[in-house]
Amino acid sequence: MGKNETDQRQEAINRYIRDDPFTAHLGAKVEIPRLGQSRVCLTVSQEMANFHGLTHGGVIFALGDIAFAAASNSAGQTAVALNVTINFLRASRPGDRLVAEAREVHAGGRTAVYDIVVSNEVTGEVIARSQDLVYRKKEWFAPGDDDPGKS
Amino acid sequence: MGKNETDQRQEAINRYIRDDPFTAHLGAKVEIPRLGQSRVCLTVSQEMANFHGLTHGGVIFALGDIAFAAASNSAGQTAVALNVTINFLRASRPGDRLVAEAREVHAGGRTAVYDIVVSNEVTGEVIARSQDLVYRKKEWFAPGDDDPGKS
Amino acid sequence: MGKNETDQRQEAINRYIRDDPFTAHLGAKVEIPRLGQSRVCLTVSQEMANFHGLTHGGVIFALGDIAFAAASNSAGQTAVALNVTINFLRASRPGDRLVAEAREVHAGGRTAVYDIVVSNEVTGEVIARSQDLVYRKKEWFAPGDDDPGKS
Amino acid sequence: MGKNETDQRQEAINRYIRDDPFTAHLGAKVEIPRLGQSRVCLTVSQEMANFHGLTHGGVIFALGDIAFAAASNSAGQTAVALNVTINFLRASRPGDRLVAEAREVHAGGRTAVYDIVVSNEVTGEVIARSQDLVYRKKEWFAPGDDDPGKS
Repeated sequence: MGKNETDQRQEAINRYIRDDPFTAHLGAKVEIPRLGQSRVCLTVSQEMANFHGLTHGGVIFALGDIAFAAASNSAGQTAVALNVTINFLRASRPGDRLVAEAREVHAGGRTAVYDIVVSNEVTGEVIARSQDLVYRKKEWFAPGDDDPGKS
Repeated sequence: MGKNETDQRQEAINRYIRDDPFTAHLGAKVEIPRLGQSRVCLTVSQEMANFHGLTHGGVIFALGDIAFAAASNSAGQTAVALNVTINFLRASRPGDRLVAEAREVHAGGRTAVYDIVVSNEVTGEVIARSQDLVYRKKEWFAPGDDDPGKS
Repeated sequence: MGKNETDQRQEAINRYIRDDPFTAHLGAKVEIPRLGQSRVCLTVSQEMANFHGLTHGGVIFALGDIAFAAASNSAGQTAVALNVTINFLRASRPGDRLVAEAREVHAGGRTAVYDIVVSNEVTGEVIARSQDLVYRKKEWFAPGDDDPGKS
Repeated sequence: MGKNETDQRQEAINRYIRDDPFTAHLGAKVEIPRLGQSRVCLTVSQEMANFHGLTHGGVIFALGDIAFAAASNSAGQTAVALNVTINFLRASRPGDRLVAEAREVHAGGRTAVYDIVVSNEVTGEVIARSQDLVYRKKEWFAPGDDDPGKS
């Protein structure tokens, strides 16, 4: 594919990834600066609190998981999460603006591993860190020259 | 405390736990059958899907996390999540009815560990399993005879 | 295969699994009571201590890992560990007799998950718990009727 | 404490950490380049193999765990492992020279988190990655000016 075609293919993949119902529901914004990386922002709303008045663990995880899915699917090959381990390091609260950054740290034959850091966008404090493992299916949701089915 | 007083205290704790904004937002229902255990149900809605059309990992985790928080805070002592590891075993879809069951498998001095199983309530198929670790703060949100501050 | 042949095949698999250099080096004993389960015993020696005088975390993990490998390879299909999460719950000491028990809690197409509990054989106290994930290769180290290569 | 006294205290801590029976038993070498960091080397021997002829998972974990213990105890405050999650990325073999590098990525009040990378020292290939959580006890094995008991 030529450069223009590559750009169009990547744009189609990014659109597919951004068109995520739960991401839209939470109001998160997804960026894919390059293959294998992502950055997702979210402002914590009142309804995202837990019974202690802090950001719900499920919201912090979801933010990291959105980043993980974006990074691990960014080449257009379907990746499914096998295992996620998350360490919760600091509390955050409704009103806080959080950002999750994911980057690929290993890509083997059928699996890949990502480091995800969730931090407070304003103070830079790290809220949570996770290490995430995917299984890469032999399925492409945006077929292209990476697709062995075409080679 | 007499039996009646104990029941009232537990009822107050359970109300506090059930009054969780994110749980309400997702539409999950929390039961606390006994200390250290919980059961949380949720019907997956369209807006809880990911870009592949399956239940979002963040929703499955959140369901387990709600069960984890209910079980680990069920004695009225504030427990904060330190680490959660989740294995995703099967896909599920909007329309599915999921249930997360948490039970305490270890309680040490300042930490405790919970096993959480998320399954399809109808078919019984296991969707995800996690092992969750909390740190127990010296704080009681429902003071009672467990409260060292009173002893 | 007839019953006798099945028994012989299982015996060959079990021999292969028990013939593990690191298991022998540590002096651990492996039992495979049934497919997908195992039980491994070890007496902690002085040289298995850490600098605080307690059983080294690496020894506790190794004991669980030997059980995990035995359970996950017990059908003669090569299983490789992808992810292990371990929670360390109680200390133990040289002289203690530890036992690790592994059991399969999920078997999907290419992956399977095991729960492992390491406990003090005498007191029954749980020392560590882990949740372990394998990838099942399309390789059999003891070919038999489970081998798709023969079907 | 003056610089010289600080150096002597750190030297005493490092000696205490290096005087680890299981580390000596495996033949690993521990370096502590600075507080919160460590580097541990090991040549894989024949007796460190598993039944598939590859480096045993327990050995890879132990190497990372030695690095983790060195980094997390490097200030002389007793740190105990709560949770370790390890992703196994590539196989290695007897004869390979492995190195584990640990660094502190979070230090909170009573807990701290470390990233550990185990790689082949010659090829640089990453063998395993883990994220490790400790609980810091109010105990110092080398009392000094970090000891609140003295302030």
